[in-house]
Amino acid sequence: MTRQTQSDNCKAVAQHFLLPEAEISLWPAWLAEPDAETLLTTLAAELSWRQEQIRIYGKTVNIPRQQVWMGEPHCSYQYSGVRFAPSSWHPAVQQLVAVVSNTINRPLNCVLLNLYASGQDHMGWHADNEPELGVAPVIASLSLGATRRFDLQHRTQGHQLQLQLENGSLLVMAGKCQQHWQHRLPKQSRVAAPRLNLTFRYIAPPI
Amino acid sequence: MTRQTQSDNCKAVAQHFLLPEAEISLWPAWLAEPDAETLLTTLAAELSWRQEQIRIYGKTVNIPRQQVWMGEPHCSYQYSGVRFAPSSWHPAVQQLVAVVSNTINRPLNCVLLNLYASGQDHMGWHADNEPELGVAPVIASLSLGATRRFDLQHRTQGHQLQLQLENGSLLVMAGKCQQHWQHRLPKQSRVAAPRLNLTFRYIAPPI
Repeated sequence: MTRQTQSDNCKAVAQHFLLPEAEISLWPAWLAEPDAETLLTTLAAELSWRQEQIRIYGKTVNIPRQQVWMGEPHCSYQYSGVRFAPSSWHPAVQQLVAVVSNTINRPLNCVLLNLYASGQDHMGWHADNEPELGVAPVIASLSLGATRRFDLQHRTQGHQLQLQLENGSLLVMAGKCQQHWQHRLPKQSRVAAPRLNLTFRYIAPPI
Repeated sequence: MTRQTQSDNCKAVAQHFLLPEAEISLWPAWLAEPDAETLLTTLAAELSWRQEQIRIYGKTVNIPRQQVWMGEPHCSYQYSGVRFAPSSWHPAVQQLVAVVSNTINRPLNCVLLNLYASGQDHMGWHADNEPELGVAPVIASLSLGATRRFDLQHRTQGHQLQLQLENGSLLVMAGKCQQHWQHRLPKQSRVAAPRLNLTFRYIAPPI
């Protein structure tokens, strides 16, 4: 797998969106298209995807996507009150995390992978503001497969940014983004193809 | 009429949105609310509003808003193939143009005023890219009345920014915004109250 350099493709130049209390960067073609497709196929087939369940109004429902939590052994992940230990690194992901970390010049040691089988799968408004991520976490999200819309909304001002996340693109959310903005991946019923995304994070090891 | 200073209201601090090929600034409470309301009432009553007509597919239809074009005598305005001479300055607008010009540190000498009677009135995707405005025009838009959503969309990348334009807010579009982005004021059928906006521009005088 080779990451595109600027000389490979002019689209690999980052686009920056400096918003009130958030810094967003997007590399539209961070991975070359064939590499992104191969990676999607590999990860979709080789990981142990789980469709978590949550309780809403006393009913147990499946969340509208499949997930895998992966990373260093100390990186546990809490979801709907349940704590999950991380899966060990898949070799392709372990290779990726180092390259992403190098691109954004920050340490990364865990990743939440989301598999959206079609445009029906989605994720509602939320922020990646778990305490273990620290006060102003940098989240790097690599998209593989179908282009999906990604929305960011300021919590109090109501302003919204809608980005198109294409196959192979790398999105970075930094600054106070997780504190003052929420984000979501809305339903897009016309999208038939799957999208897989890897959201890389850093959790400080225990002292 | 008094423009709010930072000491009057902390919301008068500008919010900046630096986007690929566009620089957007928003002063949410540039005019104090009562001043904005008085100005709306005055201008709605005292200007000669026109509902222009355009031809679409051979039919003549009213555009979904009312307009006034105002400014220095040399600032003529072309719309749907017809050239309009500017109205002379209304005293309240003439006073405003100097203050807006001072805020954005740019000359301004003409203004398109739009009156949206309700959320049914709107303006479709377009850019303020008339040749007489120059290559990278700075457009300053003062909003009075009902809060309306304002959308900006990149012409090729598809990214969108949606802002909430409140009573008394001043929006400035600069950089290559008019070249690479389009903007619109979408229909919002739940909005019953009117909105009036003044979009200040600069047209260089003939040599």
